[in-house]
Amino acid sequence: MANEKRGKQSFILETPPVITNWASVAGKKEAEGPLGKSFDITQSDSYFGQKSWELAEKRMQQMALETLAKKSAIAMKEFGLVFSGDLLNQCIGSSFTLRNTGVPHIGLYGACSTMAESLLMASMAVGGNFSDRVVALTSSHFASSERQYRFPLGYGGQRTPTAQWTVTGSGAALVCKSGKGPKITACTIGTVTDLGIKDANNMGAAMAPAALSTIRAHFEDLGCKPDDFDLIVTGDLGQLGKDVLLTLAQKEGLSLGGKLTDCGTLVFDVTKQDVHSGGSGCGCSAITLCGYLLNKLNSGKLKRILFCGTGALLSPTSSQQGLPVPGVCHAVSIVGG
Amino acid sequence: MANEKRGKQSFILETPPVITNWASVAGKKEAEGPLGKSFDITQSDSYFGQKSWELAEKRMQQMALETLAKKSAIAMKEFGLVFSGDLLNQCIGSSFTLRNTGVPHIGLYGACSTMAESLLMASMAVGGNFSDRVVALTSSHFASSERQYRFPLGYGGQRTPTAQWTVTGSGAALVCKSGKGPKITACTIGTVTDLGIKDANNMGAAMAPAALSTIRAHFEDLGCKPDDFDLIVTGDLGQLGKDVLLTLAQKEGLSLGGKLTDCGTLVFDVTKQDVHSGGSGCGCSAITLCGYLLNKLNSGKLKRILFCGTGALLSPTSSQQGLPVPGVCHAVSIVGG
Repeated sequence: MANEKRGKQSFILETPPVITNWASVAGKKEAEGPLGKSFDITQSDSYFGQKSWELAEKRMQQMALETLAKKSAIAMKEFGLVFSGDLLNQCIGSSFTLRNTGVPHIGLYGACSTMAESLLMASMAVGGNFSDRVVALTSSHFASSERQYRFPLGYGGQRTPTAQWTVTGSGAALVCKSGKGPKITACTIGTVTDLGIKDANNMGAAMAPAALSTIRAHFEDLGCKPDDFDLIVTGDLGQLGKDVLLTLAQKEGLSLGGKLTDCGTLVFDVTKQDVHSGGSGCGCSAITLCGYLLNKLNSGKLKRILFCGTGALLSPTSSQQGLPVPGVCHAVSIVGG
Repeated sequence: MANEKRGKQSFILETPPVITNWASVAGKKEAEGPLGKSFDITQSDSYFGQKSWELAEKRMQQMALETLAKKSAIAMKEFGLVFSGDLLNQCIGSSFTLRNTGVPHIGLYGACSTMAESLLMASMAVGGNFSDRVVALTSSHFASSERQYRFPLGYGGQRTPTAQWTVTGSGAALVCKSGKGPKITACTIGTVTDLGIKDANNMGAAMAPAALSTIRAHFEDLGCKPDDFDLIVTGDLGQLGKDVLLTLAQKEGLSLGGKLTDCGTLVFDVTKQDVHSGGSGCGCSAITLCGYLLNKLNSGKLKRILFCGTGALLSPTSSQQGLPVPGVCHAVSIVGG
């Protein structure tokens, strides 16, 4: 059986690429959260020793890449290709991380879906025999996001009840043709879906329809069902978005109840950490996958998950011009190593 | 012979994917330039009937996609996958174009290299059997770029002699497993290269080292030489960047002289159109490829080109923080149909 397109949005991999290693870097609030002990590196300095939050974000990506190389017992320059992107304007976190490393780089933009998007692309590059030792990488930073998308932190703006807290963290995963570790068996590419939500502070609700669309497409295209998975993990819908997704799914006769969880509700304790609806940002699903889920898959505690990165494809300009918030969701089916 | 990674940065395609159709949309200045008659649609209204320049850019992408579907005699929803990105913050030109079309979408960020980057990714998706009828798409708009990267147009800022003029245009190419048309035989993925240029108004010089690095890698990885091509076409180095590239290449003993041209110097008449060093932007190489070069390849007037999209990976924030301008270049080898 060769690689094969299945249905409208999905493909299966002839020889499932292997996630041989993974690495995560996180900030103080994330270290204090329920998954705090899962991360390779945590730092309480929000600047990560740098002069700006943007450079701090770049530094986190570098640390994740360096840690990944170390865990993989190879030099950084031996990576075959890096797929990465982030939320900073023009994705400078990613570009500056790869600068003068000599490692081939494809820049992605998928907002908070980037961990799943980069993993999906890495599985294409490895599965199609175009490269090997391919890295999927992304990051986000609470402070760089706040000042770019919302207000200067010093302004002390009130957060709405539906708001989420951008995760400070970076995750990296190494995808190879062979080796030991969790395997990527199939992927579903998302469509840009939008039911007209215009509130940029309610991104969970804006992304929920995209998550449902992709999860449903995955089941239809590949003939599987929620019970085939231990977990269906969305990226960063938060508590509210997760509830919206469950309601929308139920309306369509799809029961996700027992299987659905969300990285935004895993990474923070939403009842105690003052994060309102939960975590968000590219780093949210990145550190949850590369710090927690892959460990569980590797140790056999999870057998098969559907990792569904969710992204809100807005910009401050689109919001100021009164446009809605389109969402996207890419899904990667991962089986334990 | 299967798909195969060659050298550090390149891959060859077992069954070269075919560019079966292409479409281009351009603005007034582009219509007045040397390639004016090559474009499918040109409009003198810089708003393309929309309320903002950002929406105008989205409209151009839509028009390019619609024209591509029409030329391909299929409905838009029959596209298998769209790889696209643009220069607008958070790539809203691309996201809003794909919104609610039901077409799977992977968002890219490669600055002005996006036409080559998306074509390269499309050839992976088709060549690896992951999808079919895959679109490579991008755009840029002079007015949306100026106000985002530089100054409000009404401010009337002076342009430096090394400045380039962002092309208003969108290009789309359809890549299929089979059919008639130019074929993609091999690709080289760029590395982020930077010799320390910090002048955001001299992007040609900032991108030239990346172009040289990728062109050299293509030759080394695949055992070919400049004489194997009718043209080596860089994306948007402009007059000055092209000269820098020739000088850098000569220093390394690589003679590109007779073969090198640049979309930024093809799309505008640099002596008459007041564009200083030439054209730039994702749209520059996009409309030159999808409006001019692919026509020449299809009619047999060109037999083989190396299409080298170049991108300057800066943001206003990175420039304001005193950081240099890293460049990237992705190369796609295309043979006549």
